[in-house]
Amino acid sequence: MKQQFPDRLMQAVKAKDSRVCAGLDPRPELLPPDLSNTSDVVEATVRFCCGIIEAIAPYAVCVKPQAAFFEALAPDGLAAMWRVIEYAKQHGLLVILDAKRGDISSTAQAYARACFGLHNQASPAAAPDAVTVNPYMGADTIEPFLDVADSVQGGLFVLVKTSNPGSGDLQDLKTDCGHVYEKVSDMVCGWADQRTGECGYSSVGAVVGATYPEQLAELRCRMPRSILLVPGYGAQGSGARDVAAAFDADGLGAVVNSSRGIMYAYRQADQNWRQAAARAAGTMREDLNSVLH
Amino acid sequence: MKQQFPDRLMQAVKAKDSRVCAGLDPRPELLPPDLSNTSDVVEATVRFCCGIIEAIAPYAVCVKPQAAFFEALAPDGLAAMWRVIEYAKQHGLLVILDAKRGDISSTAQAYARACFGLHNQASPAAAPDAVTVNPYMGADTIEPFLDVADSVQGGLFVLVKTSNPGSGDLQDLKTDCGHVYEKVSDMVCGWADQRTGECGYSSVGAVVGATYPEQLAELRCRMPRSILLVPGYGAQGSGARDVAAAFDADGLGAVVNSSRGIMYAYRQADQNWRQAAARAAGTMREDLNSVLH
Repeated sequence: MKQQFPDRLMQAVKAKDSRVCAGLDPRPELLPPDLSNTSDVVEATVRFCCGIIEAIAPYAVCVKPQAAFFEALAPDGLAAMWRVIEYAKQHGLLVILDAKRGDISSTAQAYARACFGLHNQASPAAAPDAVTVNPYMGADTIEPFLDVADSVQGGLFVLVKTSNPGSGDLQDLKTDCGHVYEKVSDMVCGWADQRTGECGYSSVGAVVGATYPEQLAELRCRMPRSILLVPGYGAQGSGARDVAAAFDADGLGAVVNSSRGIMYAYRQADQNWRQAAARAAGTMREDLNSVLH
Repeated sequence: MKQQFPDRLMQAVKAKDSRVCAGLDPRPELLPPDLSNTSDVVEATVRFCCGIIEAIAPYAVCVKPQAAFFEALAPDGLAAMWRVIEYAKQHGLLVILDAKRGDISSTAQAYARACFGLHNQASPAAAPDAVTVNPYMGADTIEPFLDVADSVQGGLFVLVKTSNPGSGDLQDLKTDCGHVYEKVSDMVCGWADQRTGECGYSSVGAVVGATYPEQLAELRCRMPRSILLVPGYGAQGSGARDVAAAFDADGLGAVVNSSRGIMYAYRQADQNWRQAAARAAGTMREDLNSVLH
């Protein structure tokens, strides 16, 4: 029987001794020179993403395709995204689809089925392992995603405290029962406790930005069973020390995402883009491991 | 020069004397019998949506395609959605794409471009007039959508107080500066005041559910320049009296959405689905008009 998502992810973390998630944000205007000289932007995007996947596979445990950049290549972009997801899985990487969906009842169910690839033309080999979701509309809008995730041994990462400068506008508001992000973390705990894998972590994780190290430490304690997906590393200004608190005493319980810092590393270094991405992912792996307890 | 979104919408409201928005939630399992007998679900979906559009065009001012149901038909579903949007516009309806996206910086920009159809293969005739967005991640995640909307004279509807039972989980939390939904409404006002059309309403509107009449009345006063998109009418339990407070003294300033109550009216009445949808939209128009001041 298929393992639960947290067990698959933590096993990969141990096997590769890596906590690196490589974000796939394919922006047409930033295609490497050898790929930008084409009229077929969608095909160039697939080649770029697949090249990055090959390059970083030894150093990263997962990739996080950003749905927005594939949707922006409509109408063929989503088909391209499924090819990239399948390619990542063939290369032993777990896939977290960054879709940040949220909606009610049957609509949420349709999004969940779409995100997990349960449409009639999708290959099961192309299904992502986990999906990001937005909690603003309330618990009943996350539950249909939980049902679908449970049915495919998949995971969810609920937005709790995001990495952007404006994340405090709503998430940091003080309420009768703590900050808004703490209220969301309590909801996450409730779901996570019911879905714990053999590794002790749950299929319901949380997105907590690297750019707010104090809240990251607080939320690590507050959601003991949730794997943290930590964006904001590298290009958004945070380093390994800022994310050290995301991990438990065994160095488990979190994956840290870098998108621009890996995918577009070639723009900082006068290097082949594949080599630059591989080097950036390898360096990030070592940097993260150096701050573990 | 192209009119601003609020002027286009309020002009249509006056011309048709209608405040009806017809939600397009095409669910494969609920296709009418004469369309369900096919192996090509995507084509049947387009025919169903286009048939509904023809039927309700005299009675509704806009349609609200729900992106989730088209995404669930991947990989051809999004191309189908653009065909449906174009068909609606050809039939004189405004289109509010219900996508509820939200993300940071260049990702938000990519979503905004995707939602407004600014990809290389889209026809300008197929661009939606407005898009729904999710504010959980903060003001800086809405601003890229504002930039793109402004560039195409389009509108945004920000989720403020949604119609589902769990909407209170976060939106109703009391903070130092009012409820969370009130804080969001203040953000909406700030954007709306900078984008007022000739009609006095702004291109930045708000989603406020019909299922919470008290908050609807409060938010109508609190966001005087924002057009309200009011879901939850009909199948979600609310009637015309519940939404009367959404309108200003001239009967303007809001459109009320019904999805199941129009699109699937044929399931309640032993009627041709086109006729049932037309009758449901016509009745809803009269019911809404009967409660105007």
